[in-house]
Amino acid sequence: MTRVLELRGGISVTLRERPEQRDAAAVGEIVRATEMFTEEECEVAESLVREALAGPHSGYRFWFATLDGRLAGYSCYGPVPATLRSFDLYWIAVHPRAQGVGLGAKLLVQTERSVAALGGGRLWIETSGRARYHGTRAFYARSGYTSAAALEDFYAPGDSKIFFVKGVGPARG
Amino acid sequence: MTRVLELRGGISVTLRERPEQRDAAAVGEIVRATEMFTEEECEVAESLVREALAGPHSGYRFWFATLDGRLAGYSCYGPVPATLRSFDLYWIAVHPRAQGVGLGAKLLVQTERSVAALGGGRLWIETSGRARYHGTRAFYARSGYTSAAALEDFYAPGDSKIFFVKGVGPARG
Repeated sequence: MTRVLELRGGISVTLRERPEQRDAAAVGEIVRATEMFTEEECEVAESLVREALAGPHSGYRFWFATLDGRLAGYSCYGPVPATLRSFDLYWIAVHPRAQGVGLGAKLLVQTERSVAALGGGRLWIETSGRARYHGTRAFYARSGYTSAAALEDFYAPGDSKIFFVKGVGPARG
Repeated sequence: MTRVLELRGGISVTLRERPEQRDAAAVGEIVRATEMFTEEECEVAESLVREALAGPHSGYRFWFATLDGRLAGYSCYGPVPATLRSFDLYWIAVHPRAQGVGLGAKLLVQTERSVAALGGGRLWIETSGRARYHGTRAFYARSGYTSAAALEDFYAPGDSKIFFVKGVGPARG
């Protein structure tokens, strides 16, 4: 599916679900440009696009946002295996040149709608408890997510993993 | 590596790290015999053995316990990607015919030693909060694991995910 969305400042972006060959490199460029992820994580982000390109049953789904012909942001999500209605938001990122116009929020809302349409009940997000991720956590809180749990020292000593969750299906189960 | 261990009642088992071709089916038989996992989960358990057989860099490591020439139990663990020293215990299971002699505890201790030897600092275990997993959770608590967090309704409405953790490295980081 493809949709055209109006953002703040009269900017319009195109949202598209199906991955294209050039998306893998563009996703790598975006996540590196945010300076929020390690090189290992950036390679994972790219590889998930390549897995989805290789076969439709990879379990990874996407929304890609194009602005002026270039990829400006994307989300990556999918059902959590062995759960009834839990989905994970694996990635959401907006290129710094496209930040500040509400694109991240639009991508997140579109992702939640897709999860609900696929029968999902809860969308889970994992992020770091480090100070530099304060803005990320505030974004999820503004978007209606609850901080559900924390795993101390998960990523490294002093770097915890925080789980956010939001009920997105009709039954909120 | 291979080790011979004495269990309660004068029973001795052989512990082995390297997976063999017949382990995949034997692992499937064990996890099904416990009646604690869904068919989907049992297939995942088998597939992790096959992945490790296909290449040494699968990220999945094992301890297999053989009793009277047959696989009696096993553990499956590995480093958590993008973390400094966190490891996950993906699976631990003992065939019902070999339960009650301390084999699960031995497999867990051996796994913790391997994690520490590989530079791991914390071993994480995820399990269900459902009543039928009470014995499983009590086993982890007896083995020195702390219940670190719970994700409500994660597996299904009313079925939460519980995280246990134990510091296993010298610095307990």
